[in-house]
Amino acid sequence: MILRDSAGAAGRVRVGGTGGYDVRVGSGLLEALPAMVRDVVPARSVALVSDSNVMPLHGAPSADRLEGAGFRVSRHVFEAGEASKTRRTWVRLTDELLEAGHGRDACVVAVGGGVTTDLAGFVAATYLRGIPVVQVPTSYLAMVDASTGGKTGVDVPAGKNLVGAFHRPAVVIADVDALSTLPDRERGEGLVEAVKHGAILDVDHFAFVEAHVAELLDADPAIARRVILDSVALKARVVEQDEFEGGYRQILNFGHTLGHAVEAGSEYELGHGSAVALGMCAEAMMGENLGVTEAGTGARLAELLERLVGPVRTGVTSRAALRFLSADKKVRDGRPRTVLLERIGQVSAGTGWTYAPPEDVTADALERVLSAGLRVAPERS
Amino acid sequence: MILRDSAGAAGRVRVGGTGGYDVRVGSGLLEALPAMVRDVVPARSVALVSDSNVMPLHGAPSADRLEGAGFRVSRHVFEAGEASKTRRTWVRLTDELLEAGHGRDACVVAVGGGVTTDLAGFVAATYLRGIPVVQVPTSYLAMVDASTGGKTGVDVPAGKNLVGAFHRPAVVIADVDALSTLPDRERGEGLVEAVKHGAILDVDHFAFVEAHVAELLDADPAIARRVILDSVALKARVVEQDEFEGGYRQILNFGHTLGHAVEAGSEYELGHGSAVALGMCAEAMMGENLGVTEAGTGARLAELLERLVGPVRTGVTSRAALRFLSADKKVRDGRPRTVLLERIGQVSAGTGWTYAPPEDVTADALERVLSAGLRVAPERS
Repeated sequence: MILRDSAGAAGRVRVGGTGGYDVRVGSGLLEALPAMVRDVVPARSVALVSDSNVMPLHGAPSADRLEGAGFRVSRHVFEAGEASKTRRTWVRLTDELLEAGHGRDACVVAVGGGVTTDLAGFVAATYLRGIPVVQVPTSYLAMVDASTGGKTGVDVPAGKNLVGAFHRPAVVIADVDALSTLPDRERGEGLVEAVKHGAILDVDHFAFVEAHVAELLDADPAIARRVILDSVALKARVVEQDEFEGGYRQILNFGHTLGHAVEAGSEYELGHGSAVALGMCAEAMMGENLGVTEAGTGARLAELLERLVGPVRTGVTSRAALRFLSADKKVRDGRPRTVLLERIGQVSAGTGWTYAPPEDVTADALERVLSAGLRVAPERS
Repeated sequence: MILRDSAGAAGRVRVGGTGGYDVRVGSGLLEALPAMVRDVVPARSVALVSDSNVMPLHGAPSADRLEGAGFRVSRHVFEAGEASKTRRTWVRLTDELLEAGHGRDACVVAVGGGVTTDLAGFVAATYLRGIPVVQVPTSYLAMVDASTGGKTGVDVPAGKNLVGAFHRPAVVIADVDALSTLPDRERGEGLVEAVKHGAILDVDHFAFVEAHVAELLDADPAIARRVILDSVALKARVVEQDEFEGGYRQILNFGHTLGHAVEAGSEYELGHGSAVALGMCAEAMMGENLGVTEAGTGARLAELLERLVGPVRTGVTSRAALRFLSADKKVRDGRPRTVLLERIGQVSAGTGWTYAPPEDVTADALERVLSAGLRVAPERS
């Protein structure tokens, strides 16, 4: 449920009922960070975690504000990039928090993109068996997806996010003004997850993104706020029904089984959004070929995604990607699970939310999507 | 609530209501392990974790039985001892599980003492963001305490259990026959936690242990079963009220704040039970000196504990122990929290379950208990 504040400048989505949390979205929210932290956690001491890009832009100013409001603050920075999202960085950050003397009455404030919210979230989830985390996403990816839903974790050599924990944030504070500091490329990459929410759940959300690509890539605060609120509200509806991914929540993995495999196959050279874009196109094509997905769905997806991330060219081979599939969390009985659409805005429930394609079907879909970029033609078109 | 099976040979304690789990206690339970695993988890593949002592005794036979019943089983062994309870071992075990190809439909079966249940539990808690764990404790410590309550974790250089997660077991299976393979010394050490449950919650349980020390040290199955069931039932009552240690559960830390500090000060040379025994005596003495704890409580505690673990002689100085206190999880506002008794069987609620003594009181209690072993005289006696 989206709750619009009276001022109209900020809105919020409530995730879960009792014990749930707010996702607050608006302009200028970072200035009110200390009050919002105080509202949700009794903590007097804060461990603020940011990467080397975001620390000077938003991390340090946030730490200063918190100190100004009377919090004891320690600052923890790691080298920006997916390559830092490891158990090694988690060990170092944990030891830094211990060194700083944080007890159970401390909280982690994670300021940054998806790598930061996942990594700092995992530090919080396991520090003294769990202390609260306040998620302060500064990228589209983190605002529309990573910061909400409680998934935290790190990558390991065998694949992405294979180690982690579910750990609800105390609150999510998404200040859309931060999007203006985001590199252009990352804006489009992050919006891919908003497209995913529209594709599986809401054709109107999908169409709104289609109609406002330019403003979104330009980080227009009002349009960004609307898309983030709607996208988070869609995700929240799913997470509330199945927090720990026993079944229904798996629909959020649309595009991710094949996407992660491609991303791993590229040794994380390819952006997460581009990889998921490829994965969604491949899974849509599979569905069309199987007669489950309405004809033309893949083409409409590919068109919008290409406007966001450009044509995706990668040297990854389907063979390289397939190697990573078997280690995927979404594997059951040794076969990777994918998500199929009925049409834009409607996931297919026919296969119990996920579908385990025969290996040759997977290989074929990967082959086509990797050779064609995003514009993949289904077999019969 | 203790539920006695009709046969009388096994009993069980239910922890929590919906989403709760059984702790099953009895003779010969390991032979029925495959059926009990199948009852609680849909897993077809099992990662069995044991240490180098327990693997040949109980781990490998359990793995054989599971394989015989149609499970796919991978075996994972680590060097016995608290020194293995580290993030490094957790990394290695996690990578072994990935290498074995376990997906979300796998479960961990932890066969061993407290180190194994804590460590393997943490592997399960964080593997693919959490897969089920079946706890199969084989020591008194693990049966009466470590396997129940959902605490998992590892030690770090700054102290014990400072990294971990809450992760409920799917079921706990305590086969009292395994106690016969336990070294004598470890029997007494493990029973210290049963004494703790009696000391804070139930004078009758405390008296039953007092009356049956010889049988318990001899691993008499019927007496052991009774003590384990009663002890787990007491702990379960606390855990149900406060699973994540927001308040009331802290009473289970009686003896542990000072005990952990002594244990760390000894560089883990001192057994956990002996360290907690020292901690309980020190905290009882503090309470008597403050007039909160009935006179004679510390003496009665010390007498029973000495029958279990012998006189505790250690070269640890109070200065060495105090250094570790500030990094303790139980620290709030920079002051370590201890638990005080009113008398045997009744914790003091007067201080909100925990009490933060002034540093000189802590130092004094530590000094006395370390110099006297367990038989500590309160100030005015």
